[in-house]
Amino acid sequence: MIANFDGKDIHYEVYGEGPALVVLNGIMMSTASWKPFISAFSKNNKLVLIDFLDQGQSHKMDGGYPFTIQADVIKCVLDTLKISEAHISGVSYGAAVAMHFALKYPAYVNRLALFNCIPYTSSWLADIGEGWKTARVTPETYYQMTIPVIYSMEFYNSRTDWLNTRKEFLISNVFNNPVFLDAMERLTDSMYAHNLRDELCSISAKTLVVGGSSDYLTPLPEQKFIADRIPDSSLVIIDNCGHASMYEKPDSFTALLLGFINSESIVT
Amino acid sequence: MIANFDGKDIHYEVYGEGPALVVLNGIMMSTASWKPFISAFSKNNKLVLIDFLDQGQSHKMDGGYPFTIQADVIKCVLDTLKISEAHISGVSYGAAVAMHFALKYPAYVNRLALFNCIPYTSSWLADIGEGWKTARVTPETYYQMTIPVIYSMEFYNSRTDWLNTRKEFLISNVFNNPVFLDAMERLTDSMYAHNLRDELCSISAKTLVVGGSSDYLTPLPEQKFIADRIPDSSLVIIDNCGHASMYEKPDSFTALLLGFINSESIVT
Amino acid sequence: MIANFDGKDIHYEVYGEGPALVVLNGIMMSTASWKPFISAFSKNNKLVLIDFLDQGQSHKMDGGYPFTIQADVIKCVLDTLKISEAHISGVSYGAAVAMHFALKYPAYVNRLALFNCIPYTSSWLADIGEGWKTARVTPETYYQMTIPVIYSMEFYNSRTDWLNTRKEFLISNVFNNPVFLDAMERLTDSMYAHNLRDELCSISAKTLVVGGSSDYLTPLPEQKFIADRIPDSSLVIIDNCGHASMYEKPDSFTALLLGFINSESIVT
Amino acid sequence: MIANFDGKDIHYEVYGEGPALVVLNGIMMSTASWKPFISAFSKNNKLVLIDFLDQGQSHKMDGGYPFTIQADVIKCVLDTLKISEAHISGVSYGAAVAMHFALKYPAYVNRLALFNCIPYTSSWLADIGEGWKTARVTPETYYQMTIPVIYSMEFYNSRTDWLNTRKEFLISNVFNNPVFLDAMERLTDSMYAHNLRDELCSISAKTLVVGGSSDYLTPLPEQKFIADRIPDSSLVIIDNCGHASMYEKPDSFTALLLGFINSESIVT
Repeated sequence: MIANFDGKDIHYEVYGEGPALVVLNGIMMSTASWKPFISAFSKNNKLVLIDFLDQGQSHKMDGGYPFTIQADVIKCVLDTLKISEAHISGVSYGAAVAMHFALKYPAYVNRLALFNCIPYTSSWLADIGEGWKTARVTPETYYQMTIPVIYSMEFYNSRTDWLNTRKEFLISNVFNNPVFLDAMERLTDSMYAHNLRDELCSISAKTLVVGGSSDYLTPLPEQKFIADRIPDSSLVIIDNCGHASMYEKPDSFTALLLGFINSESIVT
Repeated sequence: MIANFDGKDIHYEVYGEGPALVVLNGIMMSTASWKPFISAFSKNNKLVLIDFLDQGQSHKMDGGYPFTIQADVIKCVLDTLKISEAHISGVSYGAAVAMHFALKYPAYVNRLALFNCIPYTSSWLADIGEGWKTARVTPETYYQMTIPVIYSMEFYNSRTDWLNTRKEFLISNVFNNPVFLDAMERLTDSMYAHNLRDELCSISAKTLVVGGSSDYLTPLPEQKFIADRIPDSSLVIIDNCGHASMYEKPDSFTALLLGFINSESIVT
Repeated sequence: MIANFDGKDIHYEVYGEGPALVVLNGIMMSTASWKPFISAFSKNNKLVLIDFLDQGQSHKMDGGYPFTIQADVIKCVLDTLKISEAHISGVSYGAAVAMHFALKYPAYVNRLALFNCIPYTSSWLADIGEGWKTARVTPETYYQMTIPVIYSMEFYNSRTDWLNTRKEFLISNVFNNPVFLDAMERLTDSMYAHNLRDELCSISAKTLVVGGSSDYLTPLPEQKFIADRIPDSSLVIIDNCGHASMYEKPDSFTALLLGFINSESIVT
Repeated sequence: MIANFDGKDIHYEVYGEGPALVVLNGIMMSTASWKPFISAFSKNNKLVLIDFLDQGQSHKMDGGYPFTIQADVIKCVLDTLKISEAHISGVSYGAAVAMHFALKYPAYVNRLALFNCIPYTSSWLADIGEGWKTARVTPETYYQMTIPVIYSMEFYNSRTDWLNTRKEFLISNVFNNPVFLDAMERLTDSMYAHNLRDELCSISAKTLVVGGSSDYLTPLPEQKFIADRIPDSSLVIIDNCGHASMYEKPDSFTALLLGFINSESIVT
């Protein structure tokens, strides 16, 4: 379905009924990436998936934009759906947007679930991003620059077939597409200004922070930083898991997300 | 309610409707310990709580017994309830019994959730247990010997009031009760023979292993050992959490347990 | 040898020649505890060992005293020896005193090596200390209350003979001695006021902070706290090591201490 | 100086007097990389630095070769110097060669110090290596593909000037040099066959294994694997340290290396 965001098309999808659950994409993902999860995520919830600007089937920009515009995209979709409150979750880029959304539109947020999230874009991560730009020379180079760092060694060594299939697909269909690569550059650029280190203390939603023990791109000290500052938050770590937690440990990802948003709070 | 286990009374409680969920006590706990969790745990499941032999309102033994007798206690309760399959979960002592149950009665086990669990009773832990026996001289000594090691420093320093209330209760009502202390000795003794290191590989149930980053009594390397060996298992770590995970992080405990047992498996 | 500290005898020992190295005891230790290390520590350094007030052969107090008095004890011994600058190192209680010394007498300190050190005495640790007081009922109870928590599970399970020999010695010769137990109470009480959380940033000495991955009494987050705040400091972690690092991993302890104090700084 | 290895020139350097200490290069390094360390390393030891085949000033190969040939290079240099026993240490590639040397020529090895070492080349690491080959398109791409992953986020964010200077140097002088890049490919290829998982138990030398808490290329589980299997070994972890431990934490690196090789063993 399509929402109108200041004249720009935003692609979104809705599945199931129940308390609303928004699941936000990582930087390279799209709504299509969540296909294996739709049945589980929509069993007891109204699941909302959104392609951010420059992602999937949403509008492609032609210049820079502030990172927080993506938070406004979420609000636009929720308003279109007349959803006044939702659980907000996201992975990496999507988790960063989720935090901005929780600060700008707190009344819309029930619970907040942040997977593989960073409080700000460090100069180190920005240089990783710069590297991605230099890798556009061939699809193979782009694959080698971006993909191995996303996965943990444990996953990579045990799921060779899955990765090889994915490698062929990405090289033949995605990393050879200049429209995708241009959008990736803008998405990457948009995140350089992300910095909520001093504002995390103002997030009022009950929050679950999830990290991977082997996440190289957004390592555990980043999630500890976040959990130390968001007042009503807890940190849980998925062992032997890299940056793409939903692919590496789909069952643990799902258990944490659904268990967190659908369980009542306990008072001991 | 009461089940008849070879002529011995077993106290159990049942709440709610849905797929059966058995939650097994830690060594010092009883069904009463789960009171704050009953509403959440029984929302979508038939919750079964059980006092093991020598716990709570169940039969008090008068001599030693094999650890695995407690697995037979579970079977007795499930048979009494005509439950042929259940999710089995437990904390510490209860998690150890759960593993024995999963090996002896695999057909009864849907999913298995092991919190703060050990593969065997090491000589170090056995000596901790011996220390508990020497501490019966006064209720205060018993408290000091057994309780501070159970909690993480983080919890202890932040929940002083909760702990002080609990301290008064335990010293005035529990640790001065020779019937309780005798039962604790037998329960402790029963666990010395626990050793599944070579049999974990035979557990066929889909299993979630949960550890606490600050669990002193059953430290993380123990849970890594278990997760490395149970074939269809994953390890998740609750940060800043000690041995009594259900009291220190009740919401994370609940999210993990309910999310794990009530979510369908994802195939990516 | 004996130094005169305000009329009180301070026992100290000196070995070898070279840049001065002071090694300070943990709370239950004395200069005698370092016997296996004397040859290594004095090979290239003038090694100074000191019994604090209420330790070993030094003066036994008869009431409370401020924790920082032990820093003055160090200064008294160094002045007696006409040593104007020394490397200062210590374990646990001794490391805490070393930090106070570095703040009060910075001109005396060359490098600072802190093993299993805490920035302050938390309410949790204070309650552990209170437990030690309740355990004086029998030497066995005192042993069980104080000793297993000091060692890592890994060490305990692998060095049974060493520990049993030590257990017999402590129960027969130390934990049955009211003079020792009274002194331990005063030493424990003295540490409750230890709190340098806001002053660590003023320690100017080049500092090595060493923690054990399995240290229960003074867990790793405490050493991270210290290393985050002392400006010229680094943190190194001995794997599979509990609180008594010098006994559990004597070679790693020695390599770190001697390597740190006797190597020149590298400028890259 | 030059040793003759089957007709091929091997460049090596010797500094100082004392027990021999061999320090072996990581894959991109050469003897020149150790310049800031020479004074410290040669203070009490005869320091031997060696350029492996395809490194620095040593012979450039023109085809593939077995990884273990580099162990024979070490033997050649030691024989040339008439050194019959030495402490052997290395970083990454050099540490892997050091293990092969310790297995093939155990009589030559006094103590063994392994920094950022792996037991075998996993398919994940091999794919990282393949990525390096695809990055030769421009010096900038090569830099972005190889360098950021080597350093920890903590180091990268705090040492921007140092890294920028290094970046300019590498791009202008090294990564634009086809002779260097060809040699790097052969060195990378040579390591794919590295696999000592089943032979580590036969290493008899007293061994120190050192890892970095933020080492992405050779993460901590790899060093735990090694330390679990070499009988007389200990594992120490440098906190907040990535793969290039000698550059990120030069003082801790130096303290560990010199403290380990120059301290006598302690018997407690």
